[in-house]
Amino acid sequence: MGNVIMHNVVSVDGFIADEHDQVGPLFDWYANGDVRLTDGIMVSETSAAYVRPIWAGIGAMVIGRRLFDLTNGWEGRPSVGDHVVVVSHRPRPEGWHPEAPYHFVDDVAQAVELARKLAGGRDVAVAAGEAGGQALALGLVDEVAMDVVPVVFGSGRRYFGSLDGQRLLEDPHVVVQGDRVLHLAFRVRR
Amino acid sequence: MGNVIMHNVVSVDGFIADEHDQVGPLFDWYANGDVRLTDGIMVSETSAAYVRPIWAGIGAMVIGRRLFDLTNGWEGRPSVGDHVVVVSHRPRPEGWHPEAPYHFVDDVAQAVELARKLAGGRDVAVAAGEAGGQALALGLVDEVAMDVVPVVFGSGRRYFGSLDGQRLLEDPHVVVQGDRVLHLAFRVRR
Repeated sequence: MGNVIMHNVVSVDGFIADEHDQVGPLFDWYANGDVRLTDGIMVSETSAAYVRPIWAGIGAMVIGRRLFDLTNGWEGRPSVGDHVVVVSHRPRPEGWHPEAPYHFVDDVAQAVELARKLAGGRDVAVAAGEAGGQALALGLVDEVAMDVVPVVFGSGRRYFGSLDGQRLLEDPHVVVQGDRVLHLAFRVRR
Repeated sequence: MGNVIMHNVVSVDGFIADEHDQVGPLFDWYANGDVRLTDGIMVSETSAAYVRPIWAGIGAMVIGRRLFDLTNGWEGRPSVGDHVVVVSHRPRPEGWHPEAPYHFVDDVAQAVELARKLAGGRDVAVAAGEAGGQALALGLVDEVAMDVVPVVFGSGRRYFGSLDGQRLLEDPHVVVQGDRVLHLAFRVRR
């Protein structure tokens, strides 16, 4: 069975975007390399070698409604994996890409469960932020992956959302230094 | 001339203590090794090899009044360096260790300037938190050193204090994996 991996790009002080949902320099490393990952994403060889097998291992993603609305659900094409489960109290927008493999579920636990089924034994990626923080709080996350960008934000949207209460992680099993990004991954201590 | 190094132990989400000033597991790595750094501090060989030369290079520290009050100024003995400059609107407590090399200054910029003089060409350490965040905002910090502990806090005292507005750092020139701590250091981009 696959792992549930919480993930996002993050500032050194724990923010995934500013208060206006702008990512600013957090995405610079998606465009500063020679290796093409997907349309419009060109990263360093080091980052490509780290990211590629992870993306290949993901069967389904869980995202929050904010990310869905901000990206218009990547126009119906999952950015990684074959399925996207959107945590939302609102249904799929009327007329929005009816054939897209997107599922709208109003509960984080049910969203992760559905994504697990859809992933068919591959990994589930959970976007960090409010949905990811809730999944971690519920004990549903196996691994926390942070692509740390050397910038201080000071304020904005937090990687762990509104999570409160301490959670121990294992020492990082991934420490990979890229160009304008430090890839870290920690298993959640059980 | 020495560098001004902002430093603290920090959770993966950017907190240096909880809301009650408790550090919880953030200090575990100060007691989990075989190498004695100072009284009561036993760290791994890896951490000792990283920390020792840094401590030896520090001539003076700048700390905030909160840290001074919490520790009672380490009873008049600087934890590193020869002098401590306390940023505080209140004076030295009456009768408190009159001979201690501690200086009370009510302005962060003046505190850093005094610490630079007292350090005599060695480095100045600025405790992260409110005082450190203010020093960074004023452009007075050369380097940001974070000893990242694999724990999520969710809330508490922030490494960068109330700093707002984005600040770019260089890619980390230190990435050292210890036992329950990941040592990172970044130069501030000018």
